Amino acid sequence: MFEYDFVIDLAKSVGKIIKENFRKALDVELKGKRDLVTNVDKSIDNFVREKIIKAFPSYGIVTEENVNVNSNSNKKFIIDPLDGTHNFVKSFPFVAVSIAYMEDETLKFGVVYNPILEEFFVGEFGKGAMLNGKSISVSKTKTLEDALIATGFVYAVRNEKTFSTFREVLDSVLSIRCNGSAALDLAYVAEGIFDGYYQKGIHIWDIAAGSLIVKEAGGYVTDFSDNENFLNKNEVLATNKLLHGDLVKMISSF
Amino acid sequence: MFEYDFVIDLAKSVGKIIKENFRKALDVELKGKRDLVTNVDKSIDNFVREKIIKAFPSYGIVTEENVNVNSNSNKKFIIDPLDGTHNFVKSFPFVAVSIAYMEDETLKFGVVYNPILEEFFVGEFGKGAMLNGKSISVSKTKTLEDALIATGFVYAVRNEKTFSTFREVLDSVLSIRCNGSAALDLAYVAEGIFDGYYQKGIHIWDIAAGSLIVKEAGGYVTDFSDNENFLNKNEVLATNKLLHGDLVKMISSF
Repeated sequence: MFEYDFVIDLAKSVGKIIKENFRKALDVELKGKRDLVTNVDKSIDNFVREKIIKAFPSYGIVTEENVNVNSNSNKKFIIDPLDGTHNFVKSFPFVAVSIAYMEDETLKFGVVYNPILEEFFVGEFGKGAMLNGKSISVSKTKTLEDALIATGFVYAVRNEKTFSTFREVLDSVLSIRCNGSAALDLAYVAEGIFDGYYQKGIHIWDIAAGSLIVKEAGGYVTDFSDNENFLNKNEVLATNKLLHGDLVKMISSF
Repeated sequence: MFEYDFVIDLAKSVGKIIKENFRKALDVELKGKRDLVTNVDKSIDNFVREKIIKAFPSYGIVTEENVNVNSNSNKKFIIDPLDGTHNFVKSFPFVAVSIAYMEDETLKFGVVYNPILEEFFVGEFGKGAMLNGKSISVSKTKTLEDALIATGFVYAVRNEKTFSTFREVLDSVLSIRCNGSAALDLAYVAEGIFDGYYQKGIHIWDIAAGSLIVKEAGGYVTDFSDNENFLNKNEVLATNKLLHGDLVKMISSF
């Protein structure tokens, strides 16, 4: 499929730009409180948009920088050019580009690529998930007590319940990780490193590619109420499937 | 210094064992609730102890596995053979060996080595800190609003205050990271990636090497009450110095 090869190439090109600029001094400006956008973020966004418009002028484009091109098209690319912006600014090596391709509301394939740790995750609808060319699958962890769970805290959506839920989860599981990249947290669920991941305050571009990769690796992804129509709900719960029910119970009221 | 070369070599040997066993199926047993100890943990501990006893039969050895050899010696090695055991069990690449050498209650040098990401941190008393042979220094971040802070949650010491403090810190800083390795969190403060790190429930072997590396990188390390005599307090606050006062205020009552 032409779009598939295009997305793989595009992810590699973007990864190269991220890597070249990682650990360099950056001009940082504020986009809302605590929400850093770097010049790199913007220049990658422009780069990606230009590439897509040239190759697929009629296709839709949804990116973090609030660009929505050809919004009526049934074929669209959903992109976070630089997931983990805070990590990028601070040189913490959990950064990634996330690119998904959707046709008629079905995610066809998705790439999450961390060029710093050289982790290239791909998921293709009905065909499985891979890391650096090797097939991956979710963990077999059966109980929360043995589970490593990832989460994150988005400033704008925090409230009392955020913390009581966090505490309840923390008290039930082996341990919690907060890495600051939704795309990579999902990829790590797909790989079986994390047994689950939940977060409020995320957007479709953060999770489109990663959620498909999780599903193709045998996992399950929903909103906090166990609804499979989650892409635009601003919240996501991804697990190895086995732990899904237990975690839904804990976070559904959150 | 003979001990210095010995520690460097020992860290490399241990790193090799960790790397060889990373992502392999592991027999896991429970040491207290949620406290996993792997066979690798134990075999590294034995390996390290044998090496030291052979080279320095009269020196003290303090390791995580509760071995305390020659406890009256004024020269001692303080070791966590595998920091980040949960990460190791789950194949999350934040694992490290931590080795410090102390003479007359002064930390002379320390190594924190993550063999998966190939990060070899060294600090030598009065001589600075290095990552992979290059000099490193703490960040210049002046305000909590711009700070990336690492922390962790140890099951045995969690209480109401743990969470209220966590919330207060989270609401004050740019973002929080939880990586599950005290030694690497300290090393990342030294490198300037994290602007600060605080944790309750840690032990001398978790922080001996890392705290020296932070100090030699220009940072400051204390207990939660701003006391520089922190090594046996089961709590640690390490910062770039500039943010220390602000963080002490927030966590001192914790």
